[in-house]
Amino acid sequence: MEAVSKDRALEILRDYTRNLPPLAAIQARVVGYDGHRLRLDAPLAANVNDKGSAFGGSMTSLMTYAGWGLVTLQLQQAGVRADVFVADSKVRYLKPLYADLRAEATLAPEQSWQLFLATLAQRGRARIHLQARITLPESEGMPHEVRAGEVMADLAGRYVAIAKR
Amino acid sequence: MEAVSKDRALEILRDYTRNLPPLAAIQARVVGYDGHRLRLDAPLAANVNDKGSAFGGSMTSLMTYAGWGLVTLQLQQAGVRADVFVADSKVRYLKPLYADLRAEATLAPEQSWQLFLATLAQRGRARIHLQARITLPESEGMPHEVRAGEVMADLAGRYVAIAKR
Repeated sequence: MEAVSKDRALEILRDYTRNLPPLAAIQARVVGYDGHRLRLDAPLAANVNDKGSAFGGSMTSLMTYAGWGLVTLQLQQAGVRADVFVADSKVRYLKPLYADLRAEATLAPEQSWQLFLATLAQRGRARIHLQARITLPESEGMPHEVRAGEVMADLAGRYVAIAKR
Repeated sequence: MEAVSKDRALEILRDYTRNLPPLAAIQARVVGYDGHRLRLDAPLAANVNDKGSAFGGSMTSLMTYAGWGLVTLQLQQAGVRADVFVADSKVRYLKPLYADLRAEATLAPEQSWQLFLATLAQRGRARIHLQARITLPESEGMPHEVRAGEVMADLAGRYVAIAKR
């Protein structure tokens, strides 16, 4: 596989996302990627629970997929063909979210894409720890207890890539 | 709130589930409840990932909601009005699932509904630890590496109930 640019990799991920039924169902949208951080959004209306706030399962879906997407982008930029799986995750639901879902995924502290890619090339398999979070978007009429950018939920996840021959 | 029977509580949960957009989106269906264990299903077709197996986020949504539903059923059977929130969870994705999603939730070991309900009555707030899992349904042409009933993913979750006045 040929290495592709950051923007081309993002375009491929956008197409992917539109065609995956569970992501289409929650109306997930790939918003942006700066080479380190992937951002996805989903509207509250499609992800609302019985209390009018965001359903925990939807927040976790979006965070889990943001992590998967970030690994996939890095592999494409490196020109590596591999299947990516989420292996396990820990999620904390910190505050009820009464706004659209905004997820972002980044590397966990002390993790390295270089080491991940080198291990994958050497052993055909590698793992990486990522973190993702749901932050509060800017909005009008925001209650005093919360502020834009505040973390409403977070996820620590381990992902595994297995090289395709 | 008046206490309702197990079957009536299940009927209420079924209606709920149909009307929650993120659950309707993944085509979640409340299958059964024996007073201890809640079972939910969702079809693979609506929850498939890029590899043709079940999307991790959908498995976690279904398990998270199964836990939420189980707490809700217990509260209704006890005639207690309370909001139920998931506080945190740990999920392990053990094997790729190439079949419909079947989730079940039960109490975690050494947890007690009696203590949970007593605490909620006394303090207006209580927490409970649950476990949920996705097991492989019976199917034809099953590969040799897996067997019906095998655990494909599991979740340990902490739920909080806050009494309504």
